[in-house]
Amino acid sequence: MENIVIKERLLRLREEMAKNGIDYYMMPTSDFHNSEYSADFFKVREYFCGFDGSNGTLVVSQDEAGMWTDGRYFIQAENQMEGTGVKLFRMLEAGVPTISEYLLANMKEGQVLGFDGRVISTSIGEDLEKKLAAKSVTLKIDRDLAETVWTDRPLLPCHDMYVLPDELCGKSFNEKISQVREHMNKLGTKAYLLSKLDDIMWLTNLRGNDVECNPVALSYALITADSFTLFAQEKEITSEVRAYCDKVGIALRGYDDVVSFVKKMNVTGNILFDKRNTNFLTFKVLLEKAKAADIKLVNAKDPTEDLKASKNEVELKNIREVYLKDSAKLTEFIYWVKNTVGKEPMTEYTAAEKLDGMRAEIPGFIELSFPTISAYNANAAMAHYEATKDNAAEVKKQGLLLVDSGGTYMGGTTDVTRTIVVGDISDEIKKHYTLTVCGMLRLANANFLEGCTGKNVDILARGPLWNAGIDYKHGTGHGIGYILNVHEGPQNIRWRFTPGQNEAPLVPGMIVSDEPGVYIEGSHGIRIENILEVVAGETGEYGQFLHFAHLTYAPIDLEAIDTTYMDNSDIKALNDYHKMVYDKLSPLIADEAVLNWLKEATREIK
Amino acid sequence: MENIVIKERLLRLREEMAKNGIDYYMMPTSDFHNSEYSADFFKVREYFCGFDGSNGTLVVSQDEAGMWTDGRYFIQAENQMEGTGVKLFRMLEAGVPTISEYLLANMKEGQVLGFDGRVISTSIGEDLEKKLAAKSVTLKIDRDLAETVWTDRPLLPCHDMYVLPDELCGKSFNEKISQVREHMNKLGTKAYLLSKLDDIMWLTNLRGNDVECNPVALSYALITADSFTLFAQEKEITSEVRAYCDKVGIALRGYDDVVSFVKKMNVTGNILFDKRNTNFLTFKVLLEKAKAADIKLVNAKDPTEDLKASKNEVELKNIREVYLKDSAKLTEFIYWVKNTVGKEPMTEYTAAEKLDGMRAEIPGFIELSFPTISAYNANAAMAHYEATKDNAAEVKKQGLLLVDSGGTYMGGTTDVTRTIVVGDISDEIKKHYTLTVCGMLRLANANFLEGCTGKNVDILARGPLWNAGIDYKHGTGHGIGYILNVHEGPQNIRWRFTPGQNEAPLVPGMIVSDEPGVYIEGSHGIRIENILEVVAGETGEYGQFLHFAHLTYAPIDLEAIDTTYMDNSDIKALNDYHKMVYDKLSPLIADEAVLNWLKEATREIK
Repeated sequence: MENIVIKERLLRLREEMAKNGIDYYMMPTSDFHNSEYSADFFKVREYFCGFDGSNGTLVVSQDEAGMWTDGRYFIQAENQMEGTGVKLFRMLEAGVPTISEYLLANMKEGQVLGFDGRVISTSIGEDLEKKLAAKSVTLKIDRDLAETVWTDRPLLPCHDMYVLPDELCGKSFNEKISQVREHMNKLGTKAYLLSKLDDIMWLTNLRGNDVECNPVALSYALITADSFTLFAQEKEITSEVRAYCDKVGIALRGYDDVVSFVKKMNVTGNILFDKRNTNFLTFKVLLEKAKAADIKLVNAKDPTEDLKASKNEVELKNIREVYLKDSAKLTEFIYWVKNTVGKEPMTEYTAAEKLDGMRAEIPGFIELSFPTISAYNANAAMAHYEATKDNAAEVKKQGLLLVDSGGTYMGGTTDVTRTIVVGDISDEIKKHYTLTVCGMLRLANANFLEGCTGKNVDILARGPLWNAGIDYKHGTGHGIGYILNVHEGPQNIRWRFTPGQNEAPLVPGMIVSDEPGVYIEGSHGIRIENILEVVAGETGEYGQFLHFAHLTYAPIDLEAIDTTYMDNSDIKALNDYHKMVYDKLSPLIADEAVLNWLKEATREIK
Repeated sequence: MENIVIKERLLRLREEMAKNGIDYYMMPTSDFHNSEYSADFFKVREYFCGFDGSNGTLVVSQDEAGMWTDGRYFIQAENQMEGTGVKLFRMLEAGVPTISEYLLANMKEGQVLGFDGRVISTSIGEDLEKKLAAKSVTLKIDRDLAETVWTDRPLLPCHDMYVLPDELCGKSFNEKISQVREHMNKLGTKAYLLSKLDDIMWLTNLRGNDVECNPVALSYALITADSFTLFAQEKEITSEVRAYCDKVGIALRGYDDVVSFVKKMNVTGNILFDKRNTNFLTFKVLLEKAKAADIKLVNAKDPTEDLKASKNEVELKNIREVYLKDSAKLTEFIYWVKNTVGKEPMTEYTAAEKLDGMRAEIPGFIELSFPTISAYNANAAMAHYEATKDNAAEVKKQGLLLVDSGGTYMGGTTDVTRTIVVGDISDEIKKHYTLTVCGMLRLANANFLEGCTGKNVDILARGPLWNAGIDYKHGTGHGIGYILNVHEGPQNIRWRFTPGQNEAPLVPGMIVSDEPGVYIEGSHGIRIENILEVVAGETGEYGQFLHFAHLTYAPIDLEAIDTTYMDNSDIKALNDYHKMVYDKLSPLIADEAVLNWLKEATREIK
């Protein structure tokens, strides 16, 4: 059946392309800052082809339209794009061209490729530019054609910003900015354009609400030796924020003014930027500026990244407290699940709703740190499974419920996964669960020398599973923000680093997830995730030793533990952990029934 | 007291410098191929300053002479250079200039720096050239001034080469060379100059005896699509070698002819070479050639390195057999040590002599694969300790004797370390010994996915020690040649890779050492080293799993095992290993007493 709506939209897009002298128009999936979640305003690709998966790029010419997505979405894309005339390009399948290969083969000598340069990363933009030079293709990157065609387009996200008190941040804006300026000096740069939203928030001690689950405001920051300009939507600047900015020396400009400001600004020396985090349009503007002013662009890692990653003492103190409260709430939730399943109706979705509601009761709650993953049995084996109200499995008194969730609070951002036994489970599940727990605890109990990266220690978490011939196809750990994004760098715990991936040493004050898992298609999925703090240990002739301390304290489900698969040190580690869980959580849990259950759930095993 | 001999030598060197228009003359420690051991012919630095340590560079001008060495040798160098007037530069100490800093500060505009370009690596040569350009310094690298001054100089090593039968090598020269030519084609090159001795030996199935403990001949190889030229000393070419070369298509040229040959040769395309393994003179000759012929030099990893590292089935079969024979002999030696100590006089040196003699009895023995390290108690804690006949500790009925040794046989090259209990030992020693054994066995029993490098798995060996706050300041493992050098790349097991160090994935057929240790200054040193073979395991949805198989089978000293420090899986691993040791060695050990002892030494523990 023909999809008249989409066809009509494409028709109008093609008219707009013709008016603008654009032969091919490309629409990827991103906001202007490569955020993890894109607001509805940015769903241009979805508007023009109907496909709403999290990864896809639409390319439209007068004769053809094609959409590229990956294996997770082939079936969904086929269904959603039926009757639109848009051709599906199955990424990584044999014989399927990449976008640049397609453009190179189909574009005619001297034609024009258009895209909104703000939603394309610099690396992709440069790659296209370089490859298409062979056909003398020109890029037009300064217009968003959807602006005209998409008449009922949602607004650009625009929510009030707010100020975090210095006491909550441990360091004032001025302390942080002087550290950043030191780095600028070291790199011989006089100006610095920062595009990464969570880095801007961390640096300014401001927060916003423009990206789902990320307490960030759409913004740019331009830093010189004696000025700091924040580009943000005027409507977001409350009087409180304005007063704060005045006080600490943050000059405010409109969000859309960044390009014209950079073009006009006086520069007295080289400009620092981080190519990974700068969109192609901004990069091009910087490049022209540098050329015109006869200075250099210095592409280096945002200095804010490392500064933000090592939490200060105030942040750590608050994080530890918040994680305890969050852990206690999760523990109450686990109790609720175990005591409700089979008695009252429960779906993956209603269970998530219950947990989300409980979290919202914690003082200082701001928002969820990501949409709660609640997946029952075989659903938990699917990497990107998301239950919705209308499409959620019923949780019965059999098997496992995997819940991966977290909140952002005034005091920290949490992330935790527990897989809960809700009824009978097989011996195989017990084996998989036990090996996952052993891996999580072995990594958590590691002692290692300063200089180690996630690559050095990953095998501690993965080893028990590898020894059983099992792997999980995701990293073991990621960094977590402070009242910020639940995923942040530079640290990563993984065994394989693809080129360009940053292999950063673990340093004291970093917090990192530890989340091994087992996923058996059509059967079950298990993941156990604690968040760990990197702590300095002994120092001496061998150097500085580091280890981890748990931030997460929630029971490991003993119903799924089979000690056959544990070493004596694994059993000791689990008992030690459970003792801490009980000692730390019991003062926070008022309900006698929960407390009695927790006592039993954290009992010593042999 | 004045050292007249050295002063006289320096005087004559300075005369020679003046004659040759050289203002500064530099003498490092290397042969023409950066071999692990340099023959006496190459000990020019020692001749001119008296210092005979394994690392040192002498720089002489008309006014001054300076010698650079590292912290291991400060005291020795002071002593050996007393009265020579040569100044000691303590490398890495605060305020001490590097050689290039020294030259830059002292050389006058337009002066000439001389050195034998064959004993300097390309990276060092290029670095000096670049830095000294600031003072318009010219390099003279085509003369070895010692040639004239050092009248009683030992001859360049020159020993008969020999041919390994194809049946022993698993692959003929022609099979190997066609693989190399495939790589040359892939890299778009028409000629390839190979300078690495063990790679040349591996490729030609020839062996020599020009470097201590390395069965290699001084040589270069020049490869084109239809020719293979081997440059070697004519006196080394036996009639057998000549006949073989004629048969397989190896053209022979004199060792010294390589430079003139390259200068004159016809090249039809780019030349491949590996900068890491090419000396500065050869590099410069190649560079000129490329310039003159308007072609490119392609600097890439010697393709022989990976080909040589993954042993073929024939090599592996022979290696497994040779390691068993070598292990049996080592086991007899351990028995001898334990039953002789305290009864007959024994020093570190005589113990090593005994072992070396026993190894020589093994059929197919060629030579030791490195000088046997035999170190008693505190001596074993010193990284570069070497007992000599005149300077060796007496081995008494107390403590530990560390023996690190190996042989090269027709069938493989071995390397093994055992630390033997010869009397009473402390509880601390037992703890250290036990943790070392646990580390060795945990790495040996790892299961891991293809793509892992030594960096991924190092923590398995190091972990038990790190958990106790102990580290060893050396890598965990290195590759080993087949009837070749005891150290070869590209694989390495270490936790930290310095820039430029190759982090190569472990692939089936590689063999690698597994040698954790504990070194307590002034007290004791422990190292346990097994050699492991990388073996393909299960393959499936998670990818290709790999694991290790032991090649070394020799008892771990149960007298030093304290099970307090072991997990139950460690105990099982040790028992399993010991069962294999007894099962595999007992058919090879004739002596009933040794066999009875071995039975007891490999008993199951609880």
